[in-house]
Amino acid sequence: MNSPSDRPPAIVTAALVIIGNEILSGRTQDANLAYVARRLTEQGLQLAEVRVVADVEAEIVSAVNLCRERYDYVFTTGGIGPTHDDITARAIARAFGIDVERHEGAAALLHDHYGQSINEARLSMADLPKGAALIDNPVSRAPGFSMDNVFVLAGVPRIMQAMLDGILPQLKAGNPVMSRTLNAFIGEGEVAQGLSVVQEAHGDVEIGSYPFFHQGEFGVSLVLRSVDTQALNHAVAETAALLQSLGVVPEEREK
Amino acid sequence: MNSPSDRPPAIVTAALVIIGNEILSGRTQDANLAYVARRLTEQGLQLAEVRVVADVEAEIVSAVNLCRERYDYVFTTGGIGPTHDDITARAIARAFGIDVERHEGAAALLHDHYGQSINEARLSMADLPKGAALIDNPVSRAPGFSMDNVFVLAGVPRIMQAMLDGILPQLKAGNPVMSRTLNAFIGEGEVAQGLSVVQEAHGDVEIGSYPFFHQGEFGVSLVLRSVDTQALNHAVAETAALLQSLGVVPEEREK
Repeated sequence: MNSPSDRPPAIVTAALVIIGNEILSGRTQDANLAYVARRLTEQGLQLAEVRVVADVEAEIVSAVNLCRERYDYVFTTGGIGPTHDDITARAIARAFGIDVERHEGAAALLHDHYGQSINEARLSMADLPKGAALIDNPVSRAPGFSMDNVFVLAGVPRIMQAMLDGILPQLKAGNPVMSRTLNAFIGEGEVAQGLSVVQEAHGDVEIGSYPFFHQGEFGVSLVLRSVDTQALNHAVAETAALLQSLGVVPEEREK
Repeated sequence: MNSPSDRPPAIVTAALVIIGNEILSGRTQDANLAYVARRLTEQGLQLAEVRVVADVEAEIVSAVNLCRERYDYVFTTGGIGPTHDDITARAIARAFGIDVERHEGAAALLHDHYGQSINEARLSMADLPKGAALIDNPVSRAPGFSMDNVFVLAGVPRIMQAMLDGILPQLKAGNPVMSRTLNAFIGEGEVAQGLSVVQEAHGDVEIGSYPFFHQGEFGVSLVLRSVDTQALNHAVAETAALLQSLGVVPEEREK
């Protein structure tokens, strides 16, 4: 990990690998992507890519290895329980080319948590890649862990959230991205040409256009994002002027 | 496309590529993954992988090209509107190494829909990869399209849903996967060992184990899936017997 004295780099990137057949089959609606995206963004980390992969070792290995080379951090969710379909720890070990071994600290936590109900299946949750660092699970004790820049989290949302909230303060933070949103009741197609002029003039501001339909009327949310407050404010002012020139009054929504 | 007389292959695979900075920043909660997963599964298609990528041409090209080689079908959502951040058509053309040109049929639909309010930005939604086939958009007329095995859909959920529902009957269907779910109030760790024995004995049945917490009690949903009804029923019977041997009464939930 980087020491706290490291200067924050402009952009810190991350990928999320969601592991689970139940998401791909439509049985379970994923609730982790939205939470991870929001929390990383608040922290100044840029979530650059998300993959949802099946409970298949080769798929997990491939996704994790591509992402850990490419991004500063990789988060995975799912597959850390005691049953046969929980193969994440083994897959991460394979991705790093190392063995799995029983982590004594994790085993002690599980013994402590389960008492008389401990059994081999439950203890197998302590079988982690050699050298893994534990991630605290204040809810169910099934251990999350990190290896290098890969953070292995639970799939159950409230456990995943507790784990993520616990580790975020330890990560290097990027420059926070500021965001301002202008809403207006106007078609996207009316504002498109002028908006592309504003975008061209402000390469350091990312402008997104998202149509909406509210109480029978079409409108558009224009979302401007930048790490540079001054650049952001200039681009917002120009966008507001554009909307006024088209005859609508933009409403700013804090986001 | 395949002729309807083609014999259905055992497994028809698909990937979903969700295009949109707004999903990655956490501004917008994706609602398309769950719908696509459920509908494809109903249709007997196996959603094998999902990727969420940014509004960056090279990212879209790379994801689409990898997925269209690997899977029978690729669906994309997002980026087909009239603004500068709608770059999907251009990216798909680049992925196929072909040019974009104005699709006369799409342009006519847009003229018809917008009447006097037509403008160049709106018409640009008809700039599609050469040879693309239109996908009907009964809601807003922004054209979706297909190129070979890639289906380009809107990002707005109700438009995406209408488009997907329209094209699904034209796709080759796989053998439908049947699913049965047994719920029981027992810890995953209690059932894990016996369940892995059932899984080993039934390679043609996929058994997933999903813990839940309901009214203060921990329980587990065991989801068994197979294209083979008889194999599925055998595995369900063994799983039910396992749960009974552990002192709990499984409740079957149709899923």
